[in-house]
Amino acid sequence: MEHNDCIFCKIVRGEIPSHKVYEDDDVLAFLDISQVTKGHTLVISKKHYDNFLATPQEVMHKVMDVAQRIGQVQIMKLGAKGVNVLTNVNKEAGQSVFHFHVHVIPRYDKKEGFRIEMKEQDTKDLSLPVLAETLSKEIK
Amino acid sequence: MEHNDCIFCKIVRGEIPSHKVYEDDDVLAFLDISQVTKGHTLVISKKHYDNFLATPQEVMHKVMDVAQRIGQVQIMKLGAKGVNVLTNVNKEAGQSVFHFHVHVIPRYDKKEGFRIEMKEQDTKDLSLPVLAETLSKEIK
Repeated sequence: MEHNDCIFCKIVRGEIPSHKVYEDDDVLAFLDISQVTKGHTLVISKKHYDNFLATPQEVMHKVMDVAQRIGQVQIMKLGAKGVNVLTNVNKEAGQSVFHFHVHVIPRYDKKEGFRIEMKEQDTKDLSLPVLAETLSKEIK
Repeated sequence: MEHNDCIFCKIVRGEIPSHKVYEDDDVLAFLDISQVTKGHTLVISKKHYDNFLATPQEVMHKVMDVAQRIGQVQIMKLGAKGVNVLTNVNKEAGQSVFHFHVHVIPRYDKKEGFRIEMKEQDTKDLSLPVLAETLSKEIK
């Protein structure tokens, strides 16, 4: 399943150049052209799936294995002190290329191009037991 | 391998209560007590591993499978429009509990308690071919 207009499918097919970090039959990893930190890498399935939630488990596992290895190497060889591993599903979550990809972002200090802001919501209006039940009955 | 002082090990052992979303022999998922958005869920390995990079592949796969399922249900049942799936390694990347966990964060609109800022670094000082080579020779 190749998508003619998908930029990551074009990178897989070699129609757009990339700085490759890893490649096998199923997975490709390359430096993000927008380096939010030094060594910021994208790991993608070669086959086109729209996002993490749409990707078959066995393919997703292979992508995550490469993400894990890259994070380890970013710490060993680039001197990163931490790593963020992130995948965004749909534009509301910041996804901009609709081909499954995982960001592996090495962290060196606190003042960098990548920042996560997590502010606790006021949970007065949330019934956590009801919320947990809503999710759990669908997951079992 | 249970860690006496680890808050997530205490949750696994039932010494600290949680709003459980899913549980099996290897994986536990529960609502994050700091709900950055409605339904913000943590998926953890029951066994203690310090972080994503320190977790054996087969365990990590099981955690990611549950994360995937939860993201799907957040969209189906909570009305989320997007999902962020995130794991942080080490304090420099924002990790605060040093037991492997994956955040599954449903997104409803742009003004929420969770925000990712990705600013492209000036890459003039970065030699991307050298950087790709440094990473790739360790990953092969």
